[in-house]
Amino acid sequence: MESDDYVGRYGFEVEPFQEDYTGRLSWGVLGNLLLRCASLHSAHYGFGYNRAEEDAYAWVLSRLVIELDEMPRTGEQFTVETWVGRIYRLFSDRPYAVRAADGRVLGYALSVWALIDKATRRPVDLEQMADPEFRRSLVGDRPCPVQPPRRIRVKAAAPTATYTARYTDIDINGHFNSIRYLELVLNLFPKERYATHRVARVEMAYSSETYCGETLSLYCEEVAPGQFAVEIRKNADTQPQVAVRADITFKPYEQE
Amino acid sequence: MESDDYVGRYGFEVEPFQEDYTGRLSWGVLGNLLLRCASLHSAHYGFGYNRAEEDAYAWVLSRLVIELDEMPRTGEQFTVETWVGRIYRLFSDRPYAVRAADGRVLGYALSVWALIDKATRRPVDLEQMADPEFRRSLVGDRPCPVQPPRRIRVKAAAPTATYTARYTDIDINGHFNSIRYLELVLNLFPKERYATHRVARVEMAYSSETYCGETLSLYCEEVAPGQFAVEIRKNADTQPQVAVRADITFKPYEQE
Repeated sequence: MESDDYVGRYGFEVEPFQEDYTGRLSWGVLGNLLLRCASLHSAHYGFGYNRAEEDAYAWVLSRLVIELDEMPRTGEQFTVETWVGRIYRLFSDRPYAVRAADGRVLGYALSVWALIDKATRRPVDLEQMADPEFRRSLVGDRPCPVQPPRRIRVKAAAPTATYTARYTDIDINGHFNSIRYLELVLNLFPKERYATHRVARVEMAYSSETYCGETLSLYCEEVAPGQFAVEIRKNADTQPQVAVRADITFKPYEQE
Repeated sequence: MESDDYVGRYGFEVEPFQEDYTGRLSWGVLGNLLLRCASLHSAHYGFGYNRAEEDAYAWVLSRLVIELDEMPRTGEQFTVETWVGRIYRLFSDRPYAVRAADGRVLGYALSVWALIDKATRRPVDLEQMADPEFRRSLVGDRPCPVQPPRRIRVKAAAPTATYTARYTDIDINGHFNSIRYLELVLNLFPKERYATHRVARVEMAYSSETYCGETLSLYCEEVAPGQFAVEIRKNADTQPQVAVRADITFKPYEQE
């Protein structure tokens, strides 16, 4: 659902089998809904995959930051709002607000995208490229108060976990699904942590794509109490390459 | 959406990020939608999780058979129909039909459920237990022409794959998600197979629950051309126990 203010508003309900074991909307479902809303919103304004240039260009997710005070629970309704916040050289910012049924903000997210020329695999200059419709859809003055992306550095020499990409992990572009990386990060921690702690902030910085059959190694270290830096490297034994850097911050429920 | 004929009808559209890499609705999303429809339909007729006995009983999935001629693609609409087909001693059959937007049947599914007394962890006799409303909702004469469940036997001594259950795999009951097992089965095969073959039939027979931290070992063998039997055992090294038996049949797209 889009409106005249160029903000897309998409209503959802937390359905059975979309929750984690604590009864809250799972991060995997939320993350994929954010990407879906981006796709619907950009398609609506004529700068998405449905355009004539569909075959020539593709939006690629570069960064994703999600900061939530509260995750909706089974049966609860929520709304995802998204808009185009900024266009600057090779990147476009797409912020989000997640609202409860009563309009209260549950959290914000910020995604950063590049538009790739499929032929050259290089990003295009959005300041040159953006068409009038896309420029018109810019909503520069709407707040999205997430902490800006950080510089994530991990020194750990031994991986905490490894995972080999398989068929069900691969998205329509032939790459490891962006949100599956987030699930791998969440899975570094024991299940019990999620009963006592909420994930207050996650940041994902996407560096290189992972293909089916490639093995990911996850290096993790606590950089501050409750805050962990994670580096996901592919082909760690042969040609190490950073696929994703992540940063995740837990807060105990008791403190709130 | 339910109607007077006791058949639940739920409309969906294949949304971006719900597809596999070939652009078809992913089996993981379809499987969880089938479970969601079961939950919505049984709640509507007063024999689901929303009842007063919610705390005393839980439906447990015993078997799931899905036979599809065709999987809907991104942007296509489809409808899941489900109804209560049979009640017999400890089990209740819940059939499904999956229809394209034009009403054409894309496939059928059959799920078999037991109602567990949470205190004793034992199934109750549904012929004794079922209330009038549940009996009234029985639709015995509606066709669901799936091949009946098979006896699945695997002799393979060495596992093809192993997987350790983590936080994001665990459902609200604290168990490994029923459909994640299906994803593990699909992931036994190279991605390329799904470009040339469709999954014509899958059968899952659930034996014992898997908990977070337990390791699953998958034993697989081809029992007929394109048909594979899979046994998923937990704690294979210490106290082997069958979690799930599965049977999956591929058909080449070319033959159709």
